[in-house]
Amino acid sequence: MDITTYMHQIGQQARAASRLMAKADSNTKNRALALIAAAIRRDAALLREANEQDLAAARANGLEAAMIDRLTLTNKGIATMAEGLEQITSLPDPIGEITNLRYRPTGIQVGQMRVPLGVIGIIYEARPNVTVDAAGLCIKSGNAAILRGGSEAIHCNRALAKLVREGLAGAGLPEQAVQVVDTTDRAAVGALVSMPEYVDVIVPRGGKGLIERLMKESKVPMIKHLDGICHVYIDDKADLDKALRVCFNAKCQRYGTCNTMETLLVAKSVASEVLPKLATLYVHEKVELRCDNESRHILASYPFLKSATEEDWRTEYLAPVLAVRVVTGVDQAIDHINSYSSQHTDSIITEDYSRAMRFLREVDSSSVMVNASTRFADGFEYGLGAEIGISNDKLHARGPVGLEGLTSVKYVVLGHGEVRK
Amino acid sequence: MDITTYMHQIGQQARAASRLMAKADSNTKNRALALIAAAIRRDAALLREANEQDLAAARANGLEAAMIDRLTLTNKGIATMAEGLEQITSLPDPIGEITNLRYRPTGIQVGQMRVPLGVIGIIYEARPNVTVDAAGLCIKSGNAAILRGGSEAIHCNRALAKLVREGLAGAGLPEQAVQVVDTTDRAAVGALVSMPEYVDVIVPRGGKGLIERLMKESKVPMIKHLDGICHVYIDDKADLDKALRVCFNAKCQRYGTCNTMETLLVAKSVASEVLPKLATLYVHEKVELRCDNESRHILASYPFLKSATEEDWRTEYLAPVLAVRVVTGVDQAIDHINSYSSQHTDSIITEDYSRAMRFLREVDSSSVMVNASTRFADGFEYGLGAEIGISNDKLHARGPVGLEGLTSVKYVVLGHGEVRK
Repeated sequence: MDITTYMHQIGQQARAASRLMAKADSNTKNRALALIAAAIRRDAALLREANEQDLAAARANGLEAAMIDRLTLTNKGIATMAEGLEQITSLPDPIGEITNLRYRPTGIQVGQMRVPLGVIGIIYEARPNVTVDAAGLCIKSGNAAILRGGSEAIHCNRALAKLVREGLAGAGLPEQAVQVVDTTDRAAVGALVSMPEYVDVIVPRGGKGLIERLMKESKVPMIKHLDGICHVYIDDKADLDKALRVCFNAKCQRYGTCNTMETLLVAKSVASEVLPKLATLYVHEKVELRCDNESRHILASYPFLKSATEEDWRTEYLAPVLAVRVVTGVDQAIDHINSYSSQHTDSIITEDYSRAMRFLREVDSSSVMVNASTRFADGFEYGLGAEIGISNDKLHARGPVGLEGLTSVKYVVLGHGEVRK
Repeated sequence: MDITTYMHQIGQQARAASRLMAKADSNTKNRALALIAAAIRRDAALLREANEQDLAAARANGLEAAMIDRLTLTNKGIATMAEGLEQITSLPDPIGEITNLRYRPTGIQVGQMRVPLGVIGIIYEARPNVTVDAAGLCIKSGNAAILRGGSEAIHCNRALAKLVREGLAGAGLPEQAVQVVDTTDRAAVGALVSMPEYVDVIVPRGGKGLIERLMKESKVPMIKHLDGICHVYIDDKADLDKALRVCFNAKCQRYGTCNTMETLLVAKSVASEVLPKLATLYVHEKVELRCDNESRHILASYPFLKSATEEDWRTEYLAPVLAVRVVTGVDQAIDHINSYSSQHTDSIITEDYSRAMRFLREVDSSSVMVNASTRFADGFEYGLGAEIGISNDKLHARGPVGLEGLTSVKYVVLGHGEVRK
């Protein structure tokens, strides 16, 4: 069977399964999640064996250490996957809720019912835990899922897919509600994003290269973010202690995450006080600072100093590197952010009420913060309970996307024979 | 200046204006709307002159009567435009509202703030009133708009654009918040849908041909519906009186609208009772019935009878034509609708509680109804106050789209120096 025929078959099966998933009640969906979690615990040894096959191939192919790290499934990782599913069972079921049901002057009642999107296609790289997390979120939200993991993880994903099917069947749900694409042929990705008749939304999880490619190719809407160029602006009315704490955390708590600060903006009148103090924190972590003229002058003795170029304002380093710019005040800070930010997460440090309110209103990003670390932009931290990804598009879901982002609302009209006049 | 350069200039100006519109308070936006309404009333004679130029050209080019009808701006039409704007001033301003602001265990407060989408591109055909309606909705929702009306209405749209600019300036808002594309070159449409850096969403209003073309070309997300293949299913537990009333209204109240019924499904056990009674209503309006075998047998003596083909289940007639199919019951009705409907609006006529609930839950359309005419699927009827269009996509807005559909929500985080652990 050629790859397009195979993917169309998967799509048709997913569409059919999605109709049954949309009708499933909460207990049934939770039972499936619990059965999958139990099967994962039971088959931990088999999963590790499958993972060993993937790791052996990865080593033979000379994959880089970071990739092998992401690919590795430890006993702890297996336990975490099972716990993640059990956490999803405890989240409220969004499906079927009817809101704003009100009588209209004509006599009809009009409200909105929350419903699944239908079929979700998820495209990701080496991490096998995404297979289970994504399956869990799609099942709970009444969707069918088509999962296309990285070819490096094919053995492990195949083993996980078997356990997911077992759990679905055990709860009386269609096994094809979660399908793992069982081929390493890269054409499968192209086919998956080209069948809007079977797939309602694509969630790509991976590097910028993958997502840029999919943006060009996809005929299906996506919930995605391309990069996270996050800013912290230290205002001249900032509490210095909060500024130091937040800016150290936002850069250094983790380097590889999309909500890490990549550019620091500092108000001119406090720059010569704040920057040297921040430098005494960053120097321990060997953070390279890429400075504009003014901040370079202030930080002249800092050992890991470079001059910033225009390109630095547009760069997501994902590394111990930080761009630094001195600005005249909150206006220039907002201008800089709205020009260069990737509309992910931006934070102001200030004790000034009006500037805080202006920053919240005027910065056009999916998360805007006052006196908090950008690292908080996360589904768990926001109380969504789980996260399929973060969106920095404006349509549909914006910011961390949990179960609700995998749903839509339709209008329901309850009448008594009313007609339009 | 070539057309791409011209459109990029319009896009840049719109993006800059959108930043100011996002900050504007409700009184200022309402003042602009009131000034535009007053200017339209004041310049009614000038608008009719401009419209006469368009009509003369349309007649010279041999445009069909229906098109000339849509293009014609009467004194009543002018008054309705002004009233429409005044109605928009009375709608609540959606922008800036913060919902669900709650403390998280870490000490941060997390909520969601409603914000404008940014720049809305609207592409429409001959009707000049769309220029004013769309401008009004975009201004009220804090967006900038780029309006591309049909070339047949260019003189009238140019005159209206001048009044909109006058109103914006009078209220202290940027004139470039609403720009009418001042060229009849069709390449302007292609350029408008190819600048995602300046345009956040495209709302196409027009025939299927226009929208299919834009779906292929657009690099910008769209709020759109392609067609309205709407169904009414008469269940065997239907109240006959309601069934007749709703089915006559859904087909005959207006033929050219997207929420008109195009296919009637009838339960087998009541078909021979219901269909002849319905036929006595439809025959007065000379409605052509395209029947499956079973209904054709029942309606053999109906004067405007044809046999339905597979193609009829997929056709939006926009005319006094109705496809008719006898089904075994609610299961087959739901199957038929989920297979053939354009996911616009579908209604069940029944007194059976469980079937009504199943229909609401299982029919995957933007509006699902019980015992009501599909003609109710409309922003005014639903209480949205106004409507920029109807969406039968699932992402972002679904069903009639009012002011809220032109907005997004971003996360706001209020902290006190918290950092991620």
